[in-house]
Amino acid sequence: MFDRRDFTRLAAAALAGIPFQRSSAHAGDAPTKDLPAPSHGGDMAGYDPNVHWMGDERIAMLMYPGMTVLDLIGPQSMFAAMMGARIHLVAKTLDPVTSDAGVTITPDATFETCPRDLTVLFAPGGTDGTIKAATDHATLAFMADRGSRATYVTSVCSGSLILGAAGLLKGFRATSHWSCRDALAGFGAIPTDARVVRDRNRITGAGVTAGLDFGLTMVAEMRDRTYAECCQLMSEYDPDPPFKAGSMKTAPPEVREPMVKMVAGFRQAAEALAAGSGLR
Amino acid sequence: MFDRRDFTRLAAAALAGIPFQRSSAHAGDAPTKDLPAPSHGGDMAGYDPNVHWMGDERIAMLMYPGMTVLDLIGPQSMFAAMMGARIHLVAKTLDPVTSDAGVTITPDATFETCPRDLTVLFAPGGTDGTIKAATDHATLAFMADRGSRATYVTSVCSGSLILGAAGLLKGFRATSHWSCRDALAGFGAIPTDARVVRDRNRITGAGVTAGLDFGLTMVAEMRDRTYAECCQLMSEYDPDPPFKAGSMKTAPPEVREPMVKMVAGFRQAAEALAAGSGLR
Repeated sequence: MFDRRDFTRLAAAALAGIPFQRSSAHAGDAPTKDLPAPSHGGDMAGYDPNVHWMGDERIAMLMYPGMTVLDLIGPQSMFAAMMGARIHLVAKTLDPVTSDAGVTITPDATFETCPRDLTVLFAPGGTDGTIKAATDHATLAFMADRGSRATYVTSVCSGSLILGAAGLLKGFRATSHWSCRDALAGFGAIPTDARVVRDRNRITGAGVTAGLDFGLTMVAEMRDRTYAECCQLMSEYDPDPPFKAGSMKTAPPEVREPMVKMVAGFRQAAEALAAGSGLR
Repeated sequence: MFDRRDFTRLAAAALAGIPFQRSSAHAGDAPTKDLPAPSHGGDMAGYDPNVHWMGDERIAMLMYPGMTVLDLIGPQSMFAAMMGARIHLVAKTLDPVTSDAGVTITPDATFETCPRDLTVLFAPGGTDGTIKAATDHATLAFMADRGSRATYVTSVCSGSLILGAAGLLKGFRATSHWSCRDALAGFGAIPTDARVVRDRNRITGAGVTAGLDFGLTMVAEMRDRTYAECCQLMSEYDPDPPFKAGSMKTAPPEVREPMVKMVAGFRQAAEALAAGSGLR
């Protein structure tokens, strides 16, 4: 339901004091191509003048084969509503990238073409593919470089393994998917069990769906609470899970036990990855 | 964090009574290509023998330019964990499809190649792009044909406008994004304000993020509650929104008012679409 162009035109209309008109632009336009120059000094036409409707954030979201696509799309959906923000879907090459569950997405930037100075650097998680990305020199060099200057260094799910492997979590509290959170200690991080963990400019989310809570937290951080609440209403984020099995604290044993067994190999791989990173 | 192959091997291992080994298959494999033949008669090795670990559902998820990608990916992430299920991302052609927020996804089936007999037919929402899809003859013909035989006819967000336009909601209770829910009456549906609405074999979700609750509901319907709870734990769906603005009932006025203005044009377009569908 999000259409970033709508947010853009809402703000433009609000700033100019003219009635808001919905976009009739071609739906396939890339989000970086239709940014109006923000108006200045106009009547806010009833909108809260304290809301930061327009910005110019530069957001880079890493993609790699085997990523979990919901880790990426949850936050992307919230970021995409930030008027004036540029989102770059960054991969090693511009070849389409296939997720762990078979969704193929086309990147729009490479490690070379991605802006050097970012507001947000973000890494999604996965399993096998994440371990592979977290041992890939070019990926780690990109993350370490952009992460050294980014205003916020962030992840959702096991994406924090990539931050850790790039040396970006030393001495920081951070979280991850429950299956590999403890492994973060091997990178010198302080594993922390919370939905969204912030330590200075490192902001990490828990597993997969935590990307929605993470995304709203980031929008509030970069804009303000009202803007984030607008995003929440537009994405109708009023969750009502049919069951209460979403965390290790609430899932019944017949759910926890097979799932813990299922991720045992990944947990070991994450621990081995982190243990091997001592010199970074 | 989901890796459907892991679920597959977990079940295979459980059924065969052998220790579970994680997949080392190429992460880019399409999800329909690596299904093992289910074992029979093996020891369940401690797993609940009443859980339906293996199935053979055929799920078709419509894609179109301007769709809201989270409407698609929320449910897809849950469906992708169903061992043995085949998910088809279906579009008019195999050309990559760009969402309202600039995410480009490659379809893997067309209206012609999509299986004729489906377990689930699904439509995601959007704004301009959804109105366009809901007035496109080929799209409506595809939806009406597959919907006439599908076990479940489903949508998230304004995707229900497409179901309605295809004549699939006459006399059924259904929901949609809050901005266009009432318009469903024009299709002969009974607009219903709930997170997930079921009326016989029509199952519709509310706006965008309701796709997670919808997806888990569908997994429980097609498999069983324990399987759905496993999906919930693996996606760590233990939501904790930082604000309480996710519905028209809870959002403060300074959030509701600009967002209602923002969607006014879309609401009108949805009502005009539904009003023009009287003869369907």
